[in-house]
Amino acid sequence: MNLDNIRIVLVEPQHPGNIGAVARAMKTMAMKSLYLVRPTNFPSHDAERRAVGAIDTLIGAKVVEDLGDAIGDCPIVVGTTSRNRAHPHPTLSARTCGEKLVREASESSPVAVLFGPERTGLSNRDMDACNFQLSIPTNPEFASLNLASAVQLLCYEIFLASDNFKPPDAKSIDYPPQSDLEFFYKHLENTLDSRGFLVDISRDVTLTKIRRLFGRSRPRVGELKLLHTLVKLMRRDLD
Amino acid sequence: MNLDNIRIVLVEPQHPGNIGAVARAMKTMAMKSLYLVRPTNFPSHDAERRAVGAIDTLIGAKVVEDLGDAIGDCPIVVGTTSRNRAHPHPTLSARTCGEKLVREASESSPVAVLFGPERTGLSNRDMDACNFQLSIPTNPEFASLNLASAVQLLCYEIFLASDNFKPPDAKSIDYPPQSDLEFFYKHLENTLDSRGFLVDISRDVTLTKIRRLFGRSRPRVGELKLLHTLVKLMRRDLD
Repeated sequence: MNLDNIRIVLVEPQHPGNIGAVARAMKTMAMKSLYLVRPTNFPSHDAERRAVGAIDTLIGAKVVEDLGDAIGDCPIVVGTTSRNRAHPHPTLSARTCGEKLVREASESSPVAVLFGPERTGLSNRDMDACNFQLSIPTNPEFASLNLASAVQLLCYEIFLASDNFKPPDAKSIDYPPQSDLEFFYKHLENTLDSRGFLVDISRDVTLTKIRRLFGRSRPRVGELKLLHTLVKLMRRDLD
Repeated sequence: MNLDNIRIVLVEPQHPGNIGAVARAMKTMAMKSLYLVRPTNFPSHDAERRAVGAIDTLIGAKVVEDLGDAIGDCPIVVGTTSRNRAHPHPTLSARTCGEKLVREASESSPVAVLFGPERTGLSNRDMDACNFQLSIPTNPEFASLNLASAVQLLCYEIFLASDNFKPPDAKSIDYPPQSDLEFFYKHLENTLDSRGFLVDISRDVTLTKIRRLFGRSRPRVGELKLLHTLVKLMRRDLD
Protein backbone atom coordinates (compact mmCIF):
# COMPACT_ATOMS: atom_id res chain seq x y z
CA MET A 1 0.00 0.00 0.00
CA ASN A 2 1.18 3.47 -0.93
CA LEU A 3 1.38 5.76 2.10
CA ASP A 4 1.93 8.94 0.08
CA ASN A 5 -1.57 10.16 0.87
CA ILE A 6 -0.85 10.35 4.58
CA ARG A 7 0.79 13.71 5.27
CA ILE A 8 2.92 14.70 8.19
CA VAL A 9 2.55 18.46 8.78
CA LEU A 10 5.01 20.26 11.06
CA VAL A 11 3.57 23.60 12.14
CA GLU A 12 6.29 26.19 12.85
CA PRO A 13 9.04 23.70 13.70
CA GLN A 14 11.74 25.61 15.60
CA HIS A 15 14.79 23.37 15.38
CA PRO A 16 15.99 22.42 11.88
CA GLY A 17 17.68 19.32 13.31
CA ASN A 18 14.25 18.02 14.23
CA ILE A 19 13.02 18.50 10.66
CA GLY A 20 15.84 16.29 9.43
CA ALA A 21 15.16 13.70 12.11
CA VAL A 22 11.47 13.72 11.15
CA ALA A 23 12.36 13.06 7.49
CA ARG A 24 14.50 10.11 8.55
CA ALA A 25 11.80 8.78 10.89
CA MET A 26 9.23 8.96 8.09
CA LYS A 27 11.41 7.20 5.54
CA THR A 28 12.15 4.31 7.89
CA MET A 29 8.40 3.70 7.87
CA ALA A 30 7.92 4.08 4.10
CA MET A 31 6.34 7.54 4.30
CA LYS A 32 7.39 10.63 2.39
CA SER A 33 4.70 13.32 2.27
CA LEU A 34 6.10 16.07 4.53
CA TYR A 35 4.71 19.62 4.86
CA LEU A 36 6.39 22.43 6.76
CA VAL A 37 4.27 25.42 7.79
CA ARG A 38 6.45 28.51 8.41
CA PRO A 39 9.56 26.65 9.60
CA THR A 40 11.85 28.89 11.66
CA ASN A 41 14.95 27.85 9.79
CA PHE A 42 14.81 25.80 6.60
CA PRO A 43 16.58 24.65 4.49
CA SER A 44 19.49 24.18 6.83
CA HIS A 45 22.67 22.19 7.25
CA ASP A 46 21.41 20.81 10.59
CA ALA A 47 18.33 19.36 8.94
CA GLU A 48 20.43 17.66 6.26
CA ARG A 49 22.85 16.27 8.80
CA ARG A 50 20.09 14.65 10.88
CA ALA A 51 18.20 13.34 7.82
CA VAL A 52 21.12 10.98 7.04
CA GLY A 53 19.81 8.78 4.18
CA ALA A 54 16.46 10.55 3.96
CA ILE A 55 17.69 13.64 2.10
CA ASP A 56 15.15 12.86 -0.64
CA THR A 57 12.29 13.14 1.84
CA LEU A 58 13.73 16.42 3.12
CA ILE A 59 14.13 17.87 -0.38
CA GLY A 60 10.58 16.75 -1.24
CA ALA A 61 9.12 18.62 1.75
CA LYS A 62 6.59 21.29 0.82
CA VAL A 63 7.08 24.59 2.61
CA VAL A 64 3.87 26.62 2.95
CA GLU A 65 2.87 29.87 4.62
CA ASP A 66 -0.65 28.90 5.64
CA LEU A 67 -1.83 25.74 7.34
CA GLY A 68 -4.72 25.72 4.87
CA ASP A 69 -2.28 25.09 2.02
CA ALA A 70 -1.19 21.87 3.73
CA ILE A 71 -4.58 20.47 4.72
CA GLY A 72 -7.21 22.19 2.55
CA ASP A 73 -7.97 19.05 0.55
CA CYS A 74 -7.98 16.67 3.52
CA PRO A 75 -11.27 15.36 4.93
CA ILE A 76 -9.44 14.02 7.98
CA VAL A 77 -7.03 16.22 9.91
CA VAL A 78 -5.57 15.00 13.20
CA GLY A 79 -3.89 17.35 15.68
CA THR A 80 -1.26 15.91 18.01
CA THR A 81 -1.47 17.10 21.59
CA SER A 82 -0.08 16.05 24.93
CA ARG A 83 -2.29 18.44 26.88
CA ASN A 84 -5.91 18.15 27.89
CA ARG A 85 -7.82 20.62 25.80
CA ALA A 86 -10.86 22.55 26.98
CA HIS A 87 -12.75 21.53 23.85
CA PRO A 88 -11.35 18.17 22.87
CA HIS A 89 -11.91 16.44 19.58
CA PRO A 90 -12.45 12.68 19.57
CA THR A 91 -9.14 11.32 20.81
CA LEU A 92 -7.10 8.67 18.99
CA SER A 93 -4.17 6.74 20.41
CA ALA A 94 -1.18 6.28 18.11
CA ARG A 95 -2.39 2.79 17.29
CA THR A 96 -6.00 3.67 16.50
CA CYS A 97 -4.81 6.73 14.60
CA GLY A 98 -2.47 4.66 12.44
CA GLU A 99 -5.25 2.21 11.64
CA LYS A 100 -7.74 4.96 10.85
CA LEU A 101 -5.38 6.86 8.56
CA VAL A 102 -4.44 3.74 6.61
CA ARG A 103 -8.11 2.83 6.24
CA GLU A 104 -9.26 6.27 5.13
CA ALA A 105 -6.44 7.77 3.09
CA SER A 106 -6.77 7.73 -0.68
CA GLU A 107 -5.58 9.75 -3.63
CA SER A 108 -8.80 11.75 -3.74
CA SER A 109 -8.90 12.09 0.06
CA PRO A 110 -5.47 12.61 1.55
CA VAL A 111 -5.28 12.75 5.34
CA ALA A 112 -3.00 14.85 7.53
CA VAL A 113 -1.52 14.76 11.01
CA LEU A 114 -0.29 18.02 12.54
CA PHE A 115 2.55 18.38 14.99
CA GLY A 116 3.03 21.76 16.68
CA PRO A 117 6.09 23.83 17.59
CA GLU A 118 8.49 22.07 20.00
CA ARG A 119 8.03 24.50 22.87
CA THR A 120 4.30 25.16 22.81
CA GLY A 121 2.52 22.50 20.77
CA LEU A 122 -0.36 23.29 18.46
CA SER A 123 -2.32 26.47 19.15
CA ASN A 124 -6.05 26.28 19.84
CA ARG A 125 -6.59 27.82 16.43
CA ASP A 126 -4.59 25.03 14.78
CA MET A 127 -6.65 22.50 16.75
CA ASP A 128 -9.81 24.10 15.42
CA ALA A 129 -8.74 23.03 11.94
CA CYS A 130 -8.68 19.38 13.07
CA ASN A 131 -11.45 16.85 13.44
CA PHE A 132 -9.54 14.38 15.61
CA GLN A 133 -6.76 14.62 18.13
CA LEU A 134 -3.85 12.26 18.59
CA SER A 135 -2.64 11.55 22.08
CA ILE A 136 0.45 9.34 22.13
CA PRO A 137 0.56 7.29 25.34
CA THR A 138 3.40 8.52 27.57
CA ASN A 139 4.56 8.59 31.16
CA PRO A 140 2.12 10.93 32.93
CA GLU A 141 5.05 12.33 34.90
CA PHE A 142 7.20 13.07 31.84
CA ALA A 143 5.34 13.39 28.57
CA SER A 144 8.06 15.37 26.84
CA LEU A 145 8.38 13.38 23.61
CA ASN A 146 10.88 14.78 21.14
CA LEU A 147 9.17 15.99 17.96
CA ALA A 148 10.88 13.40 15.76
CA SER A 149 10.13 10.68 18.32
CA ALA A 150 6.43 11.53 18.22
CA VAL A 151 6.46 11.37 14.42
CA GLN A 152 8.44 8.12 14.58
CA LEU A 153 5.88 6.44 16.85
CA LEU A 154 2.93 7.48 14.71
CA CYS A 155 4.63 6.46 11.45
CA TYR A 156 5.52 3.11 13.01
CA GLU A 157 1.86 2.50 13.79
CA ILE A 158 0.88 3.59 10.28
CA PHE A 159 3.47 1.24 8.81
CA LEU A 160 2.26 -1.68 10.93
CA ALA A 161 -1.35 -0.96 9.99
CA SER A 162 -0.51 -0.88 6.27
CA ASP A 163 0.11 -3.98 4.25
CA ASN A 164 3.64 -2.73 3.63
CA PHE A 165 4.71 -4.61 6.69
CA LYS A 166 5.13 -8.30 6.10
CA PRO A 167 6.16 -10.31 9.13
CA PRO A 168 9.15 -12.54 8.38
CA ASP A 169 7.91 -15.53 6.41
CA ALA A 170 8.03 -18.63 8.57
CA LYS A 171 7.90 -20.79 5.45
CA SER A 172 11.30 -19.61 4.33
CA ILE A 173 12.76 -21.57 7.24
CA ASP A 174 13.24 -25.20 6.43
CA TYR A 175 11.37 -27.06 9.18
CA PRO A 176 11.22 -30.85 9.07
CA PRO A 177 7.83 -32.62 9.07
CA GLN A 178 6.60 -33.76 12.46
CA SER A 179 7.25 -37.39 11.50
CA ASP A 180 10.96 -36.62 11.24
CA LEU A 181 10.84 -35.22 14.73
CA GLU A 182 9.08 -38.37 15.94
CA PHE A 183 11.76 -40.46 14.27
CA PHE A 184 14.36 -38.50 16.17
CA TYR A 185 12.56 -38.97 19.51
CA LYS A 186 12.40 -42.70 18.81
CA HIS A 187 16.07 -42.76 17.92
CA LEU A 188 16.87 -41.02 21.19
CA GLU A 189 14.53 -43.25 23.21
CA ASN A 190 15.96 -46.45 21.77
CA THR A 191 19.44 -45.20 22.40
CA LEU A 192 18.69 -44.29 26.01
CA ASP A 193 17.06 -47.70 26.48
CA SER A 194 20.06 -49.45 25.06
CA ARG A 195 22.14 -47.62 27.64
CA GLY A 196 19.75 -48.54 30.47
CA PHE A 197 19.10 -44.87 31.13
CA LEU A 198 15.31 -45.07 31.16
CA VAL A 199 14.22 -46.77 34.34
CA ASP A 200 10.63 -47.98 34.42
CA ILE A 201 9.28 -45.78 37.14
CA SER A 202 10.14 -42.40 35.58
CA ARG A 203 10.32 -43.49 31.98
CA ASP A 204 7.32 -41.54 30.68
CA VAL A 205 8.15 -38.42 32.61
CA THR A 206 11.65 -38.36 31.24
CA LEU A 207 10.50 -38.91 27.67
CA THR A 208 7.94 -36.16 28.01
CA LYS A 209 10.53 -33.75 29.34
CA ILE A 210 12.73 -34.53 26.37
CA ARG A 211 9.92 -33.92 23.92
CA ARG A 212 9.08 -30.60 25.55
CA LEU A 213 12.67 -29.51 25.51
CA PHE A 214 13.32 -30.28 21.85
CA GLY A 215 9.84 -29.33 20.79
CA ARG A 216 10.29 -25.81 22.18
CA SER A 217 13.51 -25.37 20.24
CA ARG A 218 11.71 -26.34 17.00
CA PRO A 219 14.73 -27.75 15.20
CA ARG A 220 15.23 -27.06 11.52
CA VAL A 221 16.16 -29.77 9.02
CA GLY A 222 19.90 -29.27 9.35
CA GLU A 223 19.70 -29.07 13.10
CA LEU A 224 17.79 -32.32 13.29
CA LYS A 225 20.53 -34.07 11.34
CA LEU A 226 22.97 -32.69 13.88
CA LEU A 227 20.86 -34.03 16.75
CA HIS A 228 20.78 -37.49 15.20
CA THR A 229 24.52 -37.36 14.97
CA LEU A 230 24.75 -36.47 18.64
CA VAL A 231 22.45 -39.32 19.61
CA LYS A 232 24.55 -41.71 17.58
CA LEU A 233 27.43 -40.69 19.79
CA MET A 234 25.54 -42.11 22.75
CA ARG A 235 25.14 -45.52 21.19
CA ARG A 236 27.35 -48.43 22.07
CA ASP A 237 26.30 -50.77 19.25
CA LEU A 238 28.18 -48.61 16.75
CA ASP A 239 31.46 -48.72 18.62
CA MET B 1 3.86 -1.82 37.21
CA ASN B 2 7.46 -0.97 37.88
CA LEU B 3 9.57 -1.18 34.72
CA ASP B 4 12.91 -0.81 36.51
CA ASN B 5 13.74 -4.46 35.88
CA ILE B 6 13.77 -3.97 32.14
CA ARG B 7 17.21 -2.73 31.13
CA ILE B 8 18.21 -0.86 28.04
CA VAL B 9 21.86 -1.63 27.26
CA LEU B 10 23.73 0.51 24.73
CA VAL B 11 26.84 -1.31 23.55
CA GLU B 12 29.61 1.10 22.51
CA PRO B 13 27.35 4.04 21.64
CA GLN B 14 29.39 6.41 19.46
CA HIS B 15 27.45 9.70 19.64
CA PRO B 16 26.85 11.17 23.10
CA GLY B 17 23.83 13.07 21.74
CA ASN B 18 22.17 9.73 21.12
CA ILE B 19 22.77 8.66 24.71
CA GLY B 20 20.90 11.76 25.90
CA ALA B 21 18.09 11.18 23.42
CA VAL B 22 17.84 7.56 24.61
CA ALA B 23 17.50 8.72 28.23
CA ARG B 24 14.70 11.08 27.22
CA ALA B 25 12.98 8.39 25.12
CA MET B 26 13.10 5.98 28.06
CA LYS B 27 11.72 8.44 30.57
CA THR B 28 8.75 9.34 28.35
CA MET B 29 7.81 5.67 28.64
CA ALA B 30 8.38 5.39 32.41
CA MET B 31 11.64 3.46 32.09
CA LYS B 32 14.93 4.31 33.75
CA SER B 33 17.36 1.39 33.88
CA LEU B 34 20.08 2.37 31.39
CA TYR B 35 23.45 0.64 30.96
CA LEU B 36 26.30 1.91 28.79
CA VAL B 37 28.99 -0.54 27.74
CA ARG B 38 32.22 1.28 26.80
CA PRO B 39 30.60 4.51 25.52
CA THR B 40 32.91 6.44 23.19
CA ASN B 41 32.29 9.75 24.92
CA PHE B 42 30.45 9.96 28.23
CA PRO B 43 29.58 11.96 30.27
CA SER B 44 29.26 14.76 27.78
CA HIS B 45 27.57 18.08 27.28
CA ASP B 46 25.84 16.79 24.13
CA ALA B 47 24.23 13.96 26.05
CA GLU B 48 22.90 16.36 28.68
CA ARG B 49 21.56 18.75 26.07
CA ARG B 50 19.58 16.06 24.28
CA ALA B 51 18.30 14.48 27.52
CA VAL B 52 16.28 17.65 28.26
CA GLY B 53 14.14 16.73 31.31
CA ALA B 54 15.60 13.25 31.64
CA ILE B 55 18.91 14.25 33.23
CA ASP B 56 18.09 11.97 36.18
CA THR B 57 17.92 8.96 33.86
CA LEU B 58 21.23 10.00 32.30
CA ILE B 59 22.93 10.46 35.68
CA GLY B 60 21.54 7.10 36.81
CA ALA B 61 23.06 5.29 33.81
CA LYS B 62 25.53 2.56 34.76
CA VAL B 63 28.75 2.64 32.75
CA VAL B 64 30.44 -0.77 32.50
CA GLU B 65 33.47 -2.18 30.73
CA ASP B 66 32.11 -5.64 29.99
CA LEU B 67 28.78 -6.60 28.55
CA GLY B 68 28.64 -9.33 31.20
CA ASP B 69 28.41 -6.69 33.92
CA ALA B 70 25.22 -5.38 32.33
CA ILE B 71 23.46 -8.67 31.66
CA GLY B 72 25.08 -11.32 33.89
CA ASP B 73 22.00 -11.66 36.12
CA CYS B 74 19.43 -11.60 33.28
CA PRO B 75 17.75 -14.84 32.16
CA ILE B 76 16.40 -13.07 29.09
CA VAL B 77 18.69 -11.00 26.87
CA VAL B 78 17.41 -9.62 23.58
CA GLY B 79 19.73 -8.32 20.86
CA THR B 80 18.40 -5.70 18.45
CA THR B 81 19.33 -6.23 14.84
CA SER B 82 18.20 -4.96 11.47
CA ARG B 83 20.25 -7.49 9.55
CA ASN B 84 19.57 -11.12 8.80
CA ARG B 85 21.99 -13.12 10.87
CA ALA B 86 23.55 -16.38 9.78
CA HIS B 87 22.55 -18.02 13.07
CA PRO B 88 19.40 -16.24 14.13
CA HIS B 89 17.82 -16.43 17.56
CA PRO B 90 14.04 -16.60 17.82
CA THR B 91 12.93 -13.23 16.45
CA LEU B 92 10.60 -10.86 18.27
CA SER B 93 8.87 -7.83 16.77
CA ALA B 94 8.83 -4.68 18.90
CA ARG B 95 5.30 -5.51 20.00
CA THR B 96 5.89 -9.14 20.96
CA CYS B 97 9.16 -8.13 22.60
CA GLY B 98 7.45 -5.47 24.72
CA GLU B 99 4.82 -7.97 25.83
CA LYS B 100 7.37 -10.66 26.62
CA LEU B 101 9.62 -8.37 28.65
CA VAL B 102 6.73 -7.01 30.71
CA ARG B 103 5.52 -10.57 31.36
CA GLU B 104 8.89 -11.96 32.35
CA ALA B 105 10.77 -9.18 34.12
CA SER B 106 10.93 -9.31 37.90
CA GLU B 107 13.24 -8.16 40.64
CA SER B 108 14.93 -11.53 40.86
CA SER B 109 15.01 -11.88 37.05
CA PRO B 110 15.75 -8.60 35.32
CA VAL B 111 15.68 -8.66 31.52
CA ALA B 112 17.84 -6.71 29.07
CA VAL B 113 17.67 -5.44 25.51
CA LEU B 114 20.92 -4.64 23.72
CA PHE B 115 21.41 -1.97 21.07
CA GLY B 116 24.69 -1.92 19.15
CA PRO B 117 26.98 0.87 17.95
CA GLU B 118 25.28 3.27 15.51
CA ARG B 119 27.45 2.43 12.54
CA THR B 120 27.79 -1.32 12.78
CA GLY B 121 25.10 -2.71 15.08
CA LEU B 122 25.78 -5.54 17.51
CA SER B 123 28.70 -7.85 16.78
CA ASN B 124 28.13 -11.56 16.33
CA ARG B 125 29.83 -12.06 19.68
CA ASP B 126 27.34 -9.72 21.36
CA MET B 127 24.52 -11.62 19.68
CA ASP B 128 25.89 -14.84 21.11
CA ALA B 129 25.15 -13.48 24.57
CA CYS B 130 21.47 -13.13 23.64
CA ASN B 131 18.66 -15.67 23.60
CA PHE B 132 16.25 -13.64 21.46
CA GLN B 133 16.61 -11.05 18.75
CA LEU B 134 14.50 -7.96 18.25
CA SER B 135 13.68 -6.88 14.74
CA ILE B 136 11.77 -3.59 14.61
CA PRO B 137 9.54 -3.47 11.52
CA THR B 138 10.89 -0.89 9.05
CA ASN B 139 10.84 0.07 5.40
CA PRO B 140 12.81 -2.68 3.66
CA GLU B 141 14.36 -0.02 1.43
CA PHE B 142 15.47 2.21 4.30
CA ALA B 143 15.83 0.50 7.64
CA SER B 144 18.15 3.13 9.09
CA LEU B 145 16.42 3.81 12.41
CA ASN B 146 18.21 6.30 14.62
CA LEU B 147 19.46 4.64 17.84
CA ALA B 148 17.19 6.74 20.07
CA SER B 149 14.24 6.11 17.73
CA ALA B 150 14.75 2.37 18.00
CA VAL B 151 14.83 2.61 21.79
CA GLN B 152 11.79 4.90 21.70
CA LEU B 153 9.74 2.39 19.70
CA LEU B 154 10.62 -0.53 21.95
CA CYS B 155 9.99 1.45 25.15
CA TYR B 156 6.64 2.57 23.75
CA GLU B 157 5.62 -1.05 23.24
CA ILE B 158 6.84 -1.94 26.73
CA PHE B 159 4.85 0.96 28.16
CA LEU B 160 1.69 -0.09 26.31
CA ALA B 161 2.13 -3.69 27.43
CA SER B 162 2.51 -2.65 31.08
CA ASP B 163 -0.38 -1.63 33.25
CA ASN B 164 1.22 1.81 33.58
CA PHE B 165 -0.74 2.87 30.56
CA LYS B 166 -4.32 3.67 31.35
CA PRO B 167 -6.41 4.73 28.37
CA PRO B 168 -8.28 7.97 29.10
CA ASP B 169 -11.19 7.09 31.37
CA ALA B 170 -14.44 7.50 29.46
CA LYS B 171 -16.33 7.62 32.76
CA SER B 172 -14.71 10.89 33.73
CA ILE B 173 -16.67 12.54 30.91
CA ASP B 174 -20.15 13.49 31.97
CA TYR B 175 -22.40 11.76 29.43
CA PRO B 176 -26.16 12.05 29.81
CA PRO B 177 -28.28 8.90 30.07
CA GLN B 178 -29.82 7.69 26.84
CA SER B 179 -33.27 8.80 28.01
CA ASP B 180 -32.06 12.41 28.06
CA LEU B 181 -30.94 11.99 24.48
CA GLU B 182 -34.34 10.57 23.55
CA PHE B 183 -35.98 13.54 25.24
CA PHE B 184 -33.84 15.83 23.12
CA TYR B 185 -34.76 13.99 19.89
CA LYS B 186 -38.45 14.28 20.86
CA HIS B 187 -38.00 17.97 21.60
CA LEU B 188 -36.43 18.47 18.20
CA GLU B 189 -39.04 16.33 16.41
CA ASN B 190 -41.95 18.20 18.02
CA THR B 191 -40.33 21.47 17.17
CA LEU B 192 -39.78 20.51 13.54
CA ASP B 193 -43.37 19.26 13.36
CA SER B 194 -44.65 22.51 14.77
CA ARG B 195 -42.78 24.28 12.01
CA GLY B 196 -44.19 21.97 9.32
CA PHE B 197 -40.66 20.85 8.47
CA LEU B 198 -41.30 17.11 8.59
CA VAL B 199 -43.31 16.14 5.55
CA ASP B 200 -44.96 12.74 5.73
CA ILE B 201 -43.12 11.06 2.89
CA SER B 202 -39.57 11.55 4.21
CA ARG B 203 -40.38 11.94 7.87
CA ASP B 204 -38.72 8.78 9.17
CA VAL B 205 -35.65 9.16 6.97
CA THR B 206 -35.10 12.68 8.20
CA LEU B 207 -35.51 11.70 11.84
CA THR B 208 -33.11 8.82 11.42
CA LYS B 209 -30.52 11.07 9.82
CA ILE B 210 -30.82 13.43 12.76
CA ARG B 211 -30.38 10.65 15.27
CA ARG B 212 -27.31 9.36 13.44
CA LEU B 213 -25.80 12.79 13.26
CA PHE B 214 -26.24 13.66 16.94
CA GLY B 215 -25.64 10.12 18.08
CA ARG B 216 -22.21 10.10 16.41
CA SER B 217 -21.23 13.29 18.20
CA ARG B 218 -22.18 11.72 21.56
CA PRO B 219 -23.09 14.94 23.33
CA ARG B 220 -22.08 15.50 26.95
CA VAL B 221 -24.47 16.82 29.60
CA GLY B 222 -23.56 20.45 29.08
CA GLU B 223 -23.67 20.12 25.32
CA LEU B 224 -27.12 18.58 25.44
CA LYS B 225 -28.38 21.59 27.37
CA LEU B 226 -26.92 23.77 24.66
CA LEU B 227 -28.69 21.73 21.98
CA HIS B 228 -32.03 22.11 23.77
CA THR B 229 -31.43 25.84 23.82
CA LEU B 230 -30.76 25.82 20.09
CA VAL B 231 -33.95 23.84 19.41
CA LYS B 232 -35.92 26.30 21.50
CA LEU B 233 -34.70 28.96 19.12
CA MET B 234 -36.57 27.16 16.33
CA ARG B 235 -39.89 27.23 18.14
CA ARG B 236 -42.56 29.77 17.36
CA ASP B 237 -44.81 29.09 20.38
CA LEU B 238 -42.26 30.76 22.66
CA ASP B 239 -42.14 33.98 20.70
